[in-house]
Amino acid sequence: MKLLADFLAGGVPALARAITLVENGTERGREILEAIHSRTGRAWRIGVTGPPGAGKSTLVAALTEAAAGAGRSVGIVAVDPSSPFTGGALLGDRIRMHEAATHPGVFIRSMASRGELGGLAPTTQEVADLLDAAGKDPVILETVGAGQAEVEVAQAADTTLVVLSPESGDAVQTMKAGIMEIADIYVLNKADREGAPRLAIEIESMLDARPGEHAWRPPVLQTVANEGRGVPELLDAIDRHRAFLEGSGRLGERRRRRLVRRIVALVNAAITERLLSDRVRVERMVELVQKGEKSPRKAAGEILTELGS
Amino acid sequence: MKLLADFLAGGVPALARAITLVENGTERGREILEAIHSRTGRAWRIGVTGPPGAGKSTLVAALTEAAAGAGRSVGIVAVDPSSPFTGGALLGDRIRMHEAATHPGVFIRSMASRGELGGLAPTTQEVADLLDAAGKDPVILETVGAGQAEVEVAQAADTTLVVLSPESGDAVQTMKAGIMEIADIYVLNKADREGAPRLAIEIESMLDARPGEHAWRPPVLQTVANEGRGVPELLDAIDRHRAFLEGSGRLGERRRRRLVRRIVALVNAAITERLLSDRVRVERMVELVQKGEKSPRKAAGEILTELGS
Repeated sequence: MKLLADFLAGGVPALARAITLVENGTERGREILEAIHSRTGRAWRIGVTGPPGAGKSTLVAALTEAAAGAGRSVGIVAVDPSSPFTGGALLGDRIRMHEAATHPGVFIRSMASRGELGGLAPTTQEVADLLDAAGKDPVILETVGAGQAEVEVAQAADTTLVVLSPESGDAVQTMKAGIMEIADIYVLNKADREGAPRLAIEIESMLDARPGEHAWRPPVLQTVANEGRGVPELLDAIDRHRAFLEGSGRLGERRRRRLVRRIVALVNAAITERLLSDRVRVERMVELVQKGEKSPRKAAGEILTELGS
Repeated sequence: MKLLADFLAGGVPALARAITLVENGTERGREILEAIHSRTGRAWRIGVTGPPGAGKSTLVAALTEAAAGAGRSVGIVAVDPSSPFTGGALLGDRIRMHEAATHPGVFIRSMASRGELGGLAPTTQEVADLLDAAGKDPVILETVGAGQAEVEVAQAADTTLVVLSPESGDAVQTMKAGIMEIADIYVLNKADREGAPRLAIEIESMLDARPGEHAWRPPVLQTVANEGRGVPELLDAIDRHRAFLEGSGRLGERRRRRLVRRIVALVNAAITERLLSDRVRVERMVELVQKGEKSPRKAAGEILTELGS
């Protein structure tokens, strides 16, 4: 396949085309993934998540510029929730990132999260695989918002940054968003604003209060991303985390766990697709449930049996 | 089963016990769901979602007090994300709700979201079924946060309230959270605070800008929940939405769609459970993927084939 040859030769249009084929769930996309799979696993994957307004895009742009300035070839997957009102992702936040994308070697791809059953996470990871196989390193996975889907995307990373700002609301509210458990590094962005020192102290206190033993204590770094302040220190912290995972043997275990989740999610996505395309089976069960003849769980169990498993 | 008899006789301890059995995924819980299924579908289900800090719990408490004051028997399922730092749901927000729970006929159950594969939504809906079968009406499903899991819970409702406050951030940020599409009614809480009129105008503008035809335009109501202001009007709006859905024949279609999603989610949850409990199958695939011999998607496909479907 010429596209594959072009991809392997490092062609940027071929990379872009391959991503589109994978995003659209095409057979050719699957063939490409199969062909490039053995070339993946080399890039360091950095997940970036946190509440809206914390400055994640600006931080990713600053990180990218710093890494690109050091001669690295950076790949970025930016996941935007799409809105039914605007019909797509909001581009305002992306302007600064597109500036970063003008650096040589930088490749950025935005994906719209549609909140569909089956989840965005599997496809996002496949796009990251393509960037990885194309020689990008690091590959940055950036998500907007702090919902479950975003957390799953961030969990697809080797190092996960949780980005907060003094305006993100207090630390307790952030904990509620359920994202604290996945942080390898806390980035307190907009650190020149009021409330930053207090938020840093709150996060450190929560870390002090963690039950159990922890071989890695997430550092709490302060940045002013739109001025580039604190960004070199952040790159250093990511390198330290990488050295920790590699040196302690935890990297293999982390990647294995991630792969289990990923494969299970893919199985679920395939089954969901099958059920929704073969609606007769489901509709018949829905009717019986609505008549009160069986519960939804029983209906699901019978579908499962019919699926032959 | 004595528990079932007690449940059907309206016993509160039996209801609480049944919920626990269902939450824990026990066989007895499933039996009870089966037995009570034909008694479900009578309660009006109200979903309440929105960003943290908008005052959802306070609003639910105020709604509950108003409905209980009018002689209704209210059931509440409150979904809290659990935190690995605190080990459970945060109770601060819940105090006012527990006050509401002292009204006769009011039953409240908190559930901790653990962000697990397979999702919270199926169990939440089963707990709602129990409350419904126990004669609660309305049944209120309240979620914390605006992530995908929360949206799914809210979508399990007949009428979904999206609660915002002037402090929730601007409307654009809220749209990003992906929750605007599910609103049947907007509740602008803390409406006595600065910024409320501007936020109301922003929401109305977004509604004006919706593409396509819409038979129902979500009203934008203003409340000050901790003083009960605007709450009777909100109950009226819920009744109007109910009358609209029932009168237009849309209720059946909405409930059918919901049931399709619910059954698919249950099938997914069952498959996830099966794969994670039979780890050998998955581990073997993980090993092959890590050796570069096959892609995750191919591995998932082979597992699916092995499952016999």
